Amino acid sequence: LLISDLGEFGLIERVRRGLPTPGTGVVVGIGDDVAVLRTSPDMFFLATCDIQLEGPHFLRERITPYQLGRRAAAINLSDIAAMGGVPRYVLVSLGLPDDIEVEYVDALYEGLGEEAARFGAEIVGGNMARSSSGVVVDVTLLGEVEPDLMLLRSGAQVGDLILVTGTLGDSAAGLALLQRGGGGSSPEHADVVKESHLTPTPRVREGRVIARSRGATAMIDLSDGLASDLGHICERSEVGAIIRAGEIPISEAMRSVAKTLEWDPLSWALFGGEDYELLFTVPAKKVEELVASLRRETDTPATVIGEIVSKAEGTRLLDEEGDLVPLPAQGWDHFSPRG
Amino acid sequence: LLISDLGEFGLIERVRRGLPTPGTGVVVGIGDDVAVLRTSPDMFFLATCDIQLEGPHFLRERITPYQLGRRAAAINLSDIAAMGGVPRYVLVSLGLPDDIEVEYVDALYEGLGEEAARFGAEIVGGNMARSSSGVVVDVTLLGEVEPDLMLLRSGAQVGDLILVTGTLGDSAAGLALLQRGGGGSSPEHADVVKESHLTPTPRVREGRVIARSRGATAMIDLSDGLASDLGHICERSEVGAIIRAGEIPISEAMRSVAKTLEWDPLSWALFGGEDYELLFTVPAKKVEELVASLRRETDTPATVIGEIVSKAEGTRLLDEEGDLVPLPAQGWDHFSPRG
Repeated sequence: LLISDLGEFGLIERVRRGLPTPGTGVVVGIGDDVAVLRTSPDMFFLATCDIQLEGPHFLRERITPYQLGRRAAAINLSDIAAMGGVPRYVLVSLGLPDDIEVEYVDALYEGLGEEAARFGAEIVGGNMARSSSGVVVDVTLLGEVEPDLMLLRSGAQVGDLILVTGTLGDSAAGLALLQRGGGGSSPEHADVVKESHLTPTPRVREGRVIARSRGATAMIDLSDGLASDLGHICERSEVGAIIRAGEIPISEAMRSVAKTLEWDPLSWALFGGEDYELLFTVPAKKVEELVASLRRETDTPATVIGEIVSKAEGTRLLDEEGDLVPLPAQGWDHFSPRG
Repeated sequence: LLISDLGEFGLIERVRRGLPTPGTGVVVGIGDDVAVLRTSPDMFFLATCDIQLEGPHFLRERITPYQLGRRAAAINLSDIAAMGGVPRYVLVSLGLPDDIEVEYVDALYEGLGEEAARFGAEIVGGNMARSSSGVVVDVTLLGEVEPDLMLLRSGAQVGDLILVTGTLGDSAAGLALLQRGGGGSSPEHADVVKESHLTPTPRVREGRVIARSRGATAMIDLSDGLASDLGHICERSEVGAIIRAGEIPISEAMRSVAKTLEWDPLSWALFGGEDYELLFTVPAKKVEELVASLRRETDTPATVIGEIVSKAEGTRLLDEEGDLVPLPAQGWDHFSPRG
C-alpha cells in the first residue's frame, strides 16, 4: 500500500488511530491543523507546523527567498488565525543545499521575520542542516488563545450562514500563471494574483475580530480549497452545507486571468486552495454586526456564500443554473493527483 | 559567499544578528538548541526542533523507519534533557516520496511515539507533504522546566569539575561501521555501537536528577562532539577548560571497534558527536553526592573528565603523554567538511 493510495488525510487519520489516547493536557491533538494544549489555567497554548519542500511546494527560480520566507510564515500564521488565536513564537528548521549563498538565507529570514513581526510574532529558534536535495523550510508557530474565544472546525449549527473573508481563487490563478507563463493577461491583474499565491496575507487580525465578537460557531482557513475545507467543518460539526455559486466572491483580477487562460473561475474558487482566507459560520441574526465589525476594524470584506443544513442533506452547490449539485471535496490533497 | 564558507554556527550567528531584539517573553532565543519562553509565572516553556534529511543525516537502506522515528525523537528529547526540563508535546513534519509504503509511515510513527512515551511526551500534531527528494523528518518538541532548576550553557565557574554521563565515541564508532561495513569486530561490540548511533538514549531522567540536585552550574548535550560542545559552554560561560584524555569514559565495545578499524578511540570520543550524553559542570564539593544520586536514581554512571579554568587559559587537553595541548572545537559542523 503506497501513501499515494491513501492521500494525506487518510494517512493522518491512520496515524492518529495508531497513537495512544491523548493525555488530559491535550485539548485538540493530531488530525487538526493546530494542537491545542492546556499549559496554564487561563490560556490555551497553540502549536502548528508546516513544511515547504522545493519541488512539490515551490520552485527556487519562481519565488525569491524573501517571498518564500513570508509565505512559510504566512501559512502557519493562517492556522493560528483560524482558531482566533494570537501568534507568538516561531521556530524554523532549514535544509539547505551546499550551493546556497548566504544572502539567500539572509533574505529568507528577512521574509520570515517581517511576516511574523507584522502579526506580533518573533523568531526564537531554529536549526539548519545540509540538504542534498533542495531547500526545505519547516516553520513551527506557537501561539495562544483564550479558551472561551477559541474557534474550532466543530461547532457549526444547522441554520448558520457560511461566510468567507476576501476573494477566492486568486492564488490558484496566480499559480496557473506562474506555471504556464504570462500570456495575455493585463500586467496588473497578473501581478495581483501572482502576489496572492506567492505571499498570501494571513487573516490574523480578522480571526481575532471574529473570535472576540463571539458571533461565530466554527472556523477554518482555506488552505486546501473551499470545497475541501468546508468538508472538514461539515465532518467535525456533523452537518451539511449549501454553497451558492453566484455568491462566491471572485476578484476582477482572477476573473480576467481565468478568461485569458480559458479556465472556469468557479473551479479555481471552489477547488484551487492556498487562498488562506477564513471560512466561518455565524447564526443568521449575528451576521450583519460581525460583517460590519470586520469591515470597521480590519477593512476586510466578508461575504455570505451559503448556509449550514442537516447532515442528511449533504454538501451541495447551488450552481449558476439554479441546480443543486453534490460538491465534491476535491481540493488539493498533497498525495493525490491534482484535480 | 556560500553557506559552506560560514558553517552552521557562523550562519546561525549571522541570522541572530539580523533579527530584532527578543521580546520580554523570550528568556533564551535563537542561537541555543532550545528556546525558553516565559508563558506562565511559575514555569518556563521550552521549544526545540531538529530536522533529519535523507542523505546528509541518514540513508534509508541503513536505518529502519522504526529506528529513524526513535532517533528523531531522541535527538530532540536530548535537547530538553540538557536544560533539566520535562518533555511534553511532539509535533512532526514529514516529507515523503511517493514510493513510500504506508507501513513505512506506520513504523516511523511507532518509533516516534514509543520514544516520546518512554520519557512522558506525546505526539499532538503534525503534517505530511509529498517530497520529490527523499524522506524528511522534522520534529518539534515542547517541554517545560521550573525557572530555578533550569540549566544553561552559561553558568560554569572556574574551579568547577566537568562531568559526562555514560561513555563517549560509541555513536561515531557505530557510524563508521555502518558506513564501511562490519569487518572483523565481534558481532556483540559492533551491535552495541551501531545501536548507540541509530537509537541513542536521551538522558532525560539524568538531566532531571542533575537539575533537581541544584548541584550543577551549566549543562549541554553532546550532539556535535565533546570538544565542540564544551566549546559552547566555555564561550557562554566565559571560561576555559582542561580535559584529561585518560579520564574520558570509553566503552569496551568502542575500543574494540576502534582497534579493528585502526582508528584512534580518543578522536571519536572528542570529535565524533551524536552521543547525546550530558556534559555538565559541578563545584568540586558537590560532585560526589551528585554522582551518587545519578547512580542511585538512574543507574547511569557520570565521570569527572576535567576542570573549568579561566578564559585566559583557553581550552586544552591533557593528553596521554602528559602534555597540555590546545583542544580544537572541530566537532561535526553541518556545513563544513567533516574533520
